[in-house]
Amino acid sequence: MSRPLITLTTDFGVSSPYVAQMKGAIWQRCPDANVVDLTHAIPPQDIQAGAIALRDTVPHFPRGTIHIAVVDPGVGSGRRIVCVETSDHFLIGPDNGLLSLVVATTPARRIVAIDYQRVNAGEVSATFHGRDVMAPAAARLALGEDLQSLGELVDTLEPLLYPVVALHDGCLRGCVTHFDSFGNAISNITRSDIAAAGFHASDACVQVGDQVLHGLVQHYAQRPPGECVALLGSSGYLEIASVNGSAKAGLNLSVGQEIVLQPATRK
Amino acid sequence: MSRPLITLTTDFGVSSPYVAQMKGAIWQRCPDANVVDLTHAIPPQDIQAGAIALRDTVPHFPRGTIHIAVVDPGVGSGRRIVCVETSDHFLIGPDNGLLSLVVATTPARRIVAIDYQRVNAGEVSATFHGRDVMAPAAARLALGEDLQSLGELVDTLEPLLYPVVALHDGCLRGCVTHFDSFGNAISNITRSDIAAAGFHASDACVQVGDQVLHGLVQHYAQRPPGECVALLGSSGYLEIASVNGSAKAGLNLSVGQEIVLQPATRK
Amino acid sequence: MSRPLITLTTDFGVSSPYVAQMKGAIWQRCPDANVVDLTHAIPPQDIQAGAIALRDTVPHFPRGTIHIAVVDPGVGSGRRIVCVETSDHFLIGPDNGLLSLVVATTPARRIVAIDYQRVNAGEVSATFHGRDVMAPAAARLALGEDLQSLGELVDTLEPLLYPVVALHDGCLRGCVTHFDSFGNAISNITRSDIAAAGFHASDACVQVGDQVLHGLVQHYAQRPPGECVALLGSSGYLEIASVNGSAKAGLNLSVGQEIVLQPATRK
Repeated sequence: MSRPLITLTTDFGVSSPYVAQMKGAIWQRCPDANVVDLTHAIPPQDIQAGAIALRDTVPHFPRGTIHIAVVDPGVGSGRRIVCVETSDHFLIGPDNGLLSLVVATTPARRIVAIDYQRVNAGEVSATFHGRDVMAPAAARLALGEDLQSLGELVDTLEPLLYPVVALHDGCLRGCVTHFDSFGNAISNITRSDIAAAGFHASDACVQVGDQVLHGLVQHYAQRPPGECVALLGSSGYLEIASVNGSAKAGLNLSVGQEIVLQPATRK
Repeated sequence: MSRPLITLTTDFGVSSPYVAQMKGAIWQRCPDANVVDLTHAIPPQDIQAGAIALRDTVPHFPRGTIHIAVVDPGVGSGRRIVCVETSDHFLIGPDNGLLSLVVATTPARRIVAIDYQRVNAGEVSATFHGRDVMAPAAARLALGEDLQSLGELVDTLEPLLYPVVALHDGCLRGCVTHFDSFGNAISNITRSDIAAAGFHASDACVQVGDQVLHGLVQHYAQRPPGECVALLGSSGYLEIASVNGSAKAGLNLSVGQEIVLQPATRK
Repeated sequence: MSRPLITLTTDFGVSSPYVAQMKGAIWQRCPDANVVDLTHAIPPQDIQAGAIALRDTVPHFPRGTIHIAVVDPGVGSGRRIVCVETSDHFLIGPDNGLLSLVVATTPARRIVAIDYQRVNAGEVSATFHGRDVMAPAAARLALGEDLQSLGELVDTLEPLLYPVVALHDGCLRGCVTHFDSFGNAISNITRSDIAAAGFHASDACVQVGDQVLHGLVQHYAQRPPGECVALLGSSGYLEIASVNGSAKAGLNLSVGQEIVLQPATRK
């Protein structure tokens, strides 16, 4: 009925012709597909950043959407290309941890290791499997073929080294996992981590670098421009922002920087 | 018949996953929508730049197009989200002046203040109304629902502080309002301002910074590379360009810089 | 049956509203067109870079696709706008060499010089023929009109000064023609140039700047991060890469830099 929906997440850089080559390869096989960009601004070879973009964005797409992800420093080596079916979506990408954060929240029902020759009868380059393997595989799913026509079932995916949040001595310790385009510093600490620790958002004390913030705000405009605030962002993760500015630039933060939450210290 | 057309204008940065989240939220509700980018390169929180991009681009879209605009430093505060119906289009955005330049040329027929709960039965975040309020509202219009199903009618929009062109002592005074991606400096002075002042484009004298330009050219290639020219650009506004180069970089111009037109001084 | 497919290649910059104006102008005339970005990251006025992006990407699109290309420093001058029909595609752009690399591999069957008034009954600006001439022309083709309804047949296209590969004294000499977004330096030397010279990819010696590389690799991951490698890239051209890094930045390369291949020197 509706056109099949396919999204692309890559580290190819914004407006790269490589992205257009993937789209062309899909439309050659499935002209009715609605092929859209999830993001192409993943830093080159940054698997964790790709995994986070997928984790935060895939849940907003309709059931049945096919998501292709290409952050693939091992292209041409022995690493597998997999297709994962969850209860909601299909995911296609290298088996290097890139798909693992989505699968952590929406478990895999079936996983296949894609057989290159089965999905592409033509020439498969050694350096661009996004175009020559993943795009044709996605087109087959979009045309209604079963997952198992793409290759053999496998049991597990390679994991991603993603930092865990620790509760110790009454402190919740996490870190900055990425920045958005506004320069907001987003962490691995969730709303439920904070609730489980028994902290109250309104008066918890947040330490990051040499900043100490008292209480989370609800939204940016609660404080004047330039002020540093902590809040739960639109994907449910604690973030540090500079109102109408960039926390990344203003506070000199980087990925991996520790963030510590404590209950309010009342005197 | 044709698919409903929805455009997105934001300051989210190019290739941001936030854009994809908005598209997913639309397709969840209206799978047939043709959702396209107007621009995502508006400088963060720059309402005037967003208003200008809309003013120059909306008229080129088919009648009935739904335009969502998100440059929204006040997200989560008391500012309203509005949907405006003009004779040609629908506009959805925060009521902070962002929609005002379109409405100045194509008057509003009806305006509603969007009721968040009416358009989104799910959870509405405090920091991403583009995804949680505006996208669902656009999907409802795309599905054919009436504007008034989105909320209550209101009478007026917040204005934008947009610089006016002044004619005084025989001089037309305007200013640079924005730069395009070539570095052309575009002003608020229109073809009709120049005609109303009685100046002739071919010999009017244009002053900007320490440059004095004699006469407007018709197109860039009339002068050699590197030369500074003034002309009426493709949206009808006076612009200052450096042939095959960037006037912004070469002339050290910035938004707000005064531009003065005088009739030719003949000796 | 399927929606007509139209691609856009420009130097307008990523996420420029000028791109959206072209899309709007197409949809005004052909609401069912699937209009997609090939790339908008061509450096301003860089005709060779545009020609290369088209050459490498057009072959991946379905037969019948209409490709519009706008890298047009001569806009408004006497240069023609042409529409080229090959056995596979339609190409629309200024006649300044931009289309010539595609036509070198897929010869033109018919070429017309587009008559502005025939394709756009409205106002044609002097500075934006992409929107006011090429978009309406593409829409006419997408609606099924014949090429010759756009203008008069012409015989030839303006050539592009594209560097040739020379085989001399047993050395194959080419140069860097462009960089991709990873910073890989891509040359004009093809797989068949190397075969015709009688060199073996596995042991040929590649010189670029002060680097000497022994043998081409098959894919990046064959060598450790940071190492400089030569390989045949996904479009069939010799490229110089820095594994998981940028050859452009790391080796201080630029467009035009000579690359020399020799057969292996064995001792």
